[in-house]
Amino acid sequence: MNLISYSSEINNDNKKSFIDSIDTFIFDCDGVLWIADTIVPGAIETLNYLRHTLGKKILFVTNNSTKTRQQFQDKIKSFGIECFIDEVYGSSYGAAIYLNQINFPKDSKKVFIIGEYGLEKELNDQNFKTIKEINKLKDGLDSVQNTVIDKDIGAVIVGMDTQLTFQKATYAHMCIKEIEGCLFIATNPDSSYPVKDGKTLPGAGSIVSMIQTSTQVKPITIGKPETLLLDVILKKDNLDPKRTLFVGDRLDTDIAFAFNGGIKSLLVLTGISQLSEINNIDSKINPNFYTNTIADLLPSNN
Amino acid sequence: MNLISYSSEINNDNKKSFIDSIDTFIFDCDGVLWIADTIVPGAIETLNYLRHTLGKKILFVTNNSTKTRQQFQDKIKSFGIECFIDEVYGSSYGAAIYLNQINFPKDSKKVFIIGEYGLEKELNDQNFKTIKEINKLKDGLDSVQNTVIDKDIGAVIVGMDTQLTFQKATYAHMCIKEIEGCLFIATNPDSSYPVKDGKTLPGAGSIVSMIQTSTQVKPITIGKPETLLLDVILKKDNLDPKRTLFVGDRLDTDIAFAFNGGIKSLLVLTGISQLSEINNIDSKINPNFYTNTIADLLPSNN
Repeated sequence: MNLISYSSEINNDNKKSFIDSIDTFIFDCDGVLWIADTIVPGAIETLNYLRHTLGKKILFVTNNSTKTRQQFQDKIKSFGIECFIDEVYGSSYGAAIYLNQINFPKDSKKVFIIGEYGLEKELNDQNFKTIKEINKLKDGLDSVQNTVIDKDIGAVIVGMDTQLTFQKATYAHMCIKEIEGCLFIATNPDSSYPVKDGKTLPGAGSIVSMIQTSTQVKPITIGKPETLLLDVILKKDNLDPKRTLFVGDRLDTDIAFAFNGGIKSLLVLTGISQLSEINNIDSKINPNFYTNTIADLLPSNN
Repeated sequence: MNLISYSSEINNDNKKSFIDSIDTFIFDCDGVLWIADTIVPGAIETLNYLRHTLGKKILFVTNNSTKTRQQFQDKIKSFGIECFIDEVYGSSYGAAIYLNQINFPKDSKKVFIIGEYGLEKELNDQNFKTIKEINKLKDGLDSVQNTVIDKDIGAVIVGMDTQLTFQKATYAHMCIKEIEGCLFIATNPDSSYPVKDGKTLPGAGSIVSMIQTSTQVKPITIGKPETLLLDVILKKDNLDPKRTLFVGDRLDTDIAFAFNGGIKSLLVLTGISQLSEINNIDSKINPNFYTNTIADLLPSNN
C-alpha cells in the first residue's frame, strides 16, 4: 500500500503555488544540501532566496546523535550556509527536549547513556543528570554478572557509541529489565554509520538492536523515520503542519518521517533515492512532490 | 499452524514401545537433567538405565558457546552423571565441525571470532586459525573508521562475549561487508544469558543481532532451534533420524530443534514450558511425546 498515491513533479507551472503553500522548510542535509564534502550547486542561493527574499522559516535536521547542535551548526556554516543555532535539530537534542516535554523528573532521576559527547552535552545542557562511564569492570562473566546498577536511573538512552563495551550494554540491559518504569529511548534507528571511502560502521540502530534483542523491550525512537523528533520541532516552534515541508533524499527515512508526522514532503534526487522508485506499482512510499535538485526552487530564468 | 498436531503422554501402556523405538537419546541439560545447581531426582538412575540396562546411545547438547566440550563434560560429571567427551556437543564445537563439513579452507583462510575461550579453543582444536584480539585502537570515530581488516578472513563467528567492544563489532562488520564470500556464523541465537539470582545478561543472540542489523546479512546459525548442530550430530555419529529422540524442556528451542531437524521429541515438564502450552488451539508447536520428568522413563514399580 502506498502512503501517498502519486507524487507531483515541481515545474514552472506549479512552483509558485507550491512555495506559497509552505511557511517552514525543514531540510535533511547530506544528500540534499551537500553530498559528502561537496555543496550541491545552487543550494546556498536557494536557501538565501527562501529565507531572505520570501521570508520563509528554515530548519535543519540530522539523525546523527554524536554531534551537539553547536557542532552541527558549525558544519552547516562550513559549507557557506547561513544557519542559526535555534534552526538546528539533532536526535540527541530531540531526546533531551522529549524528556522535557514528558516532564521526566530530572531532580530525582538520572539518565544512563550509551552514546558520545553530543548526547551527553545536550542532556546536560537541559539539566539532566547523566551516567556514561561505568566503573571499568574486570573482564569476564564473573565480574559482569556482578554489575551493580544505580536504582535512580529513570531512562536509558542509546545512540551511536564507538566506545561501546559489553559492560555498558549489560548496564543498560539491567536498568531496563530491573528498574520498574525505566524508559528505553533510541536516538535514531540508523543501522549503519557512513564514514569515508563509502565504508560504514555499525550505527546507533545496531546497538539499539542488541539491547532490544536482549531485553525484548521495544525502544521509544526519536529520530527519522519515527515522528518524535518532528513532534518536538512542531511543538517547540509552534508550526502549522499543513504549511510545513520536509525536504529529503531518502524515501525510507526522510519521506516516511514527513508522512508519519503529518507534514508535506519533497524528494530531491541528488542523494540516495532515485526517480524510478516512485510513482510505480512497486512504490511503498511516495513523496508529495519531487524535483531533481534543491536549486529547482529558485525562480526560473525563462 | 501446529508443527505436530497432538502430543502423546508417556504412560505405563506405551512406555516400552516408545523406548524400544529409540536408539539414541539426545539430552538438553538445564531444565531436564538439572535445574540451576540441583539434579532432577532420578535423572542419574534414568541415564544409567538407558545406557547400561538397555544399551542406548546417550548424547548431551548445549547452546552455550563459552564452554569447551571438556568444560561442559566436567560440569555434567559434577552432578554425578556418567559422561564421555564424544557424547558432548556444544554450539562452539558444532561451529568448528560445521566448518570442517563444508571444507572451509583452513590452510589459506582465518576465522575472526567474537567469543570467549570455548569458541577459540574448539576452533583451534580443529586446526582453524583464529583472530580474537584486535589491536586496541584509540577510542573514537577517527580511529575506529581506520580499522584495517585481515583480508584472509573467510568467516566471522559470533557467540557470547563479555569482552565485546565497538572495535570488535566494527571488525566483524567490515569483514562481512568488505570481504567477498566471508561467512557470517552465529553459534546460537539465545537473546539473553541466564546468570545467578534469576538475572540475565545480553546473550549471544543480542550480539548477533547487532552485527546482523549493521550488515543487513542474515547469519548461518548453528545452535537450537536451527538445525545445523543437529545435522552435525547426525552426520558425525551416523545416526538414524527415525530412531533418534531429543529430550528438552522448551518448546521454542528444544522441541522446535527436534522438529526442524526431523527427529522425535520428548518434552519434560521440569523446566520452562508447561503442560498448558501444548495440545490446545493456541499451541504453535507440540512435541511428539511429553512426560512430567525424565525419571518417568524408569521402569514402573507396579
